[in-house]
Amino acid sequence: MGKGRFEAFSDGVFAIAITLLVLEIHLPSADTLNDGQMQHYLIHLWPQLVTYVTSFATIGIIWLNHHSTFVHVQSLDHVTLSLNLVLLLTVCFVPFPTALVAKYGALPASTALYGATLTAMGLSYGALWYYTVRQETRRSPATAPRLTGVTMLKGTAGTAGYFVGTLLAFVAPRLSEFLFVSVAIYYAIPGRLETARRDPTPT
Amino acid sequence: MGKGRFEAFSDGVFAIAITLLVLEIHLPSADTLNDGQMQHYLIHLWPQLVTYVTSFATIGIIWLNHHSTFVHVQSLDHVTLSLNLVLLLTVCFVPFPTALVAKYGALPASTALYGATLTAMGLSYGALWYYTVRQETRRSPATAPRLTGVTMLKGTAGTAGYFVGTLLAFVAPRLSEFLFVSVAIYYAIPGRLETARRDPTPT
Amino acid sequence: MGKGRFEAFSDGVFAIAITLLVLEIHLPSADTLNDGQMQHYLIHLWPQLVTYVTSFATIGIIWLNHHSTFVHVQSLDHVTLSLNLVLLLTVCFVPFPTALVAKYGALPASTALYGATLTAMGLSYGALWYYTVRQETRRSPATAPRLTGVTMLKGTAGTAGYFVGTLLAFVAPRLSEFLFVSVAIYYAIPGRLETARRDPTPT
Amino acid sequence: MGKGRFEAFSDGVFAIAITLLVLEIHLPSADTLNDGQMQHYLIHLWPQLVTYVTSFATIGIIWLNHHSTFVHVQSLDHVTLSLNLVLLLTVCFVPFPTALVAKYGALPASTALYGATLTAMGLSYGALWYYTVRQETRRSPATAPRLTGVTMLKGTAGTAGYFVGTLLAFVAPRLSEFLFVSVAIYYAIPGRLETARRDPTPT
Repeated sequence: MGKGRFEAFSDGVFAIAITLLVLEIHLPSADTLNDGQMQHYLIHLWPQLVTYVTSFATIGIIWLNHHSTFVHVQSLDHVTLSLNLVLLLTVCFVPFPTALVAKYGALPASTALYGATLTAMGLSYGALWYYTVRQETRRSPATAPRLTGVTMLKGTAGTAGYFVGTLLAFVAPRLSEFLFVSVAIYYAIPGRLETARRDPTPT
Repeated sequence: MGKGRFEAFSDGVFAIAITLLVLEIHLPSADTLNDGQMQHYLIHLWPQLVTYVTSFATIGIIWLNHHSTFVHVQSLDHVTLSLNLVLLLTVCFVPFPTALVAKYGALPASTALYGATLTAMGLSYGALWYYTVRQETRRSPATAPRLTGVTMLKGTAGTAGYFVGTLLAFVAPRLSEFLFVSVAIYYAIPGRLETARRDPTPT
Repeated sequence: MGKGRFEAFSDGVFAIAITLLVLEIHLPSADTLNDGQMQHYLIHLWPQLVTYVTSFATIGIIWLNHHSTFVHVQSLDHVTLSLNLVLLLTVCFVPFPTALVAKYGALPASTALYGATLTAMGLSYGALWYYTVRQETRRSPATAPRLTGVTMLKGTAGTAGYFVGTLLAFVAPRLSEFLFVSVAIYYAIPGRLETARRDPTPT
Repeated sequence: MGKGRFEAFSDGVFAIAITLLVLEIHLPSADTLNDGQMQHYLIHLWPQLVTYVTSFATIGIIWLNHHSTFVHVQSLDHVTLSLNLVLLLTVCFVPFPTALVAKYGALPASTALYGATLTAMGLSYGALWYYTVRQETRRSPATAPRLTGVTMLKGTAGTAGYFVGTLLAFVAPRLSEFLFVSVAIYYAIPGRLETARRDPTPT
């Protein structure tokens, strides 16, 4: 199984999903607007923009992690490919709950669906990462990324945050959204990717 | 003809078609919704989600097979390129019947169109696979994938399933959809790709 | 200027433009349909499908030609990059007149816009091809594709067909569409790419 | 961190964002049109087309610059990746203000948002470029692009133009749009990319 096409296909899906998000920002439905109405529309747009940026950052971070993991992986098997397709399924699905939350605001049901999608993405990424690193450790123990308690805890923390946010959505959807943003910021802080970056030279 | 660009272009089309599917999930048409209406909408969304996942899995599996075949192929000619464009045409078309079935449910006519699209995809993939493997066998008999009765039967089984589902759609469209899901599951089971994977090391 | 990224970016744009076309097939506007209405809709869909397949084939053939030309090209300069961006601009624009013709049928004005877009695509591809091959001939006369009267005539024939179709659209738009389909079929026939394929081995 | 996947992912996002723009050209809302109405629609389409071409050219030029910069860069760190994601966020966002300006014309508020998006894109590209070139100069002073007053001035000029256009939008939005077009033309003129193209041979 060629790693090149595996990465190219995954990169394509990540790139498209992250770019499609913009189509889910809800345009005004009126056929004409004056400048006052446009201002009103744009001022009330910020919750949509927060949702947009959160989804963008979340997919972007999963892409960074995907990249950091597979740069160290030499062989792919059928299970890896299937787990990767499941991960891509969740990534491709993100624009849909993003659109619901962007259009209708932070309702409990749609915010919970948004959180459940992020949780599923985190879980499937975790399964892909765990399986791949374990296989790689068997095949080439010298170069494989290490499976330590710390790296596993760091990876689990985000998914746990998404899961808590999903439950929270039923009682306090706005707080829940705040949690999703926080997880994105937590992952964006350097250090998170450290464990996979032993070799800083380009490959 | 460079294999690199051939694969890159095909991967791009597969990745985009699989990602566009999410745009075909039908958003509520109302401008505002309360949480009860959102719950009602989401609860009734599952047939759309089944259709979405079926289309996603079907395209994903064709991509896996495409990949497994061309990793062993060394030369591309004009016929291969043309057959590949026909395959990509059917792949790109999938979001349209997916949207019809997702929006209007399992009506006989649209379910038949959905099945006919999958059948056309199976047939054009089969033609591409058969032509390419036969050419490759002539050129480099040692490394070409084998054309055996078993691999041809396995490949034909799915397309036959799509064809039966298409006919079935006119009398029992829901059963027909169930068949399409079953074919996807059948192909997802490891072993299906075995014949093309003689060399488990990365290329 | 790296040829790899030049080709990857161009392939990306071709792949996306060709895949976006499906979003321009006009779904029924009603919220629910019975099977009879769905059948009626699907039976009257064929002019849209002809337009869809014509646009798909036209972009696919330009991609094939683009590929055939640049496989022989070793160096890219600023003019090549700019001419390529102009070509990609016309390629990206194709879904728009496709949508107009698909939604409103073969009206003179929109069919003329469709033809003008194809003409612009043919002209900008011709300019890119002529400039690039001439530059390449200067730099590496041994491997550059030959600029002969025959290859230039073949290349010009299609664009001339698009141009005639554009003028014809004002008096007989259906005939005009028939001409666009014919050009696509003419280009799909093997032999067209021959001049650029001196070396049938993969690169 | 592999440069290949970094470039592939960035190219994917640029290619998709540039191709999605066409979906933002506003189709007529009527279900049927006669040829006179279609002509009227097409004649009044030109402001939308100017906006479309401006956005296309602006993204295309950022891609050219991105390419010209990274062809000389050997190593990527976490800061580069994060700055690149911020740049891609602004690139992906461009279709949204493009759609607003295309649909509702040059209103002050939406034109200002359009300009602010281009300004943010210019600033984030500038930050990415400055950081990357400075890092590269430390690591491989011999091959790194030079950070001179001239290159920095050229890079800043465009962003300054976007910023002035944004402020101007509140009083004279049409003049503002004219300025955005002018910046695109300024950047399209050869010479702009010279400083990064020391080595005209392909890489």
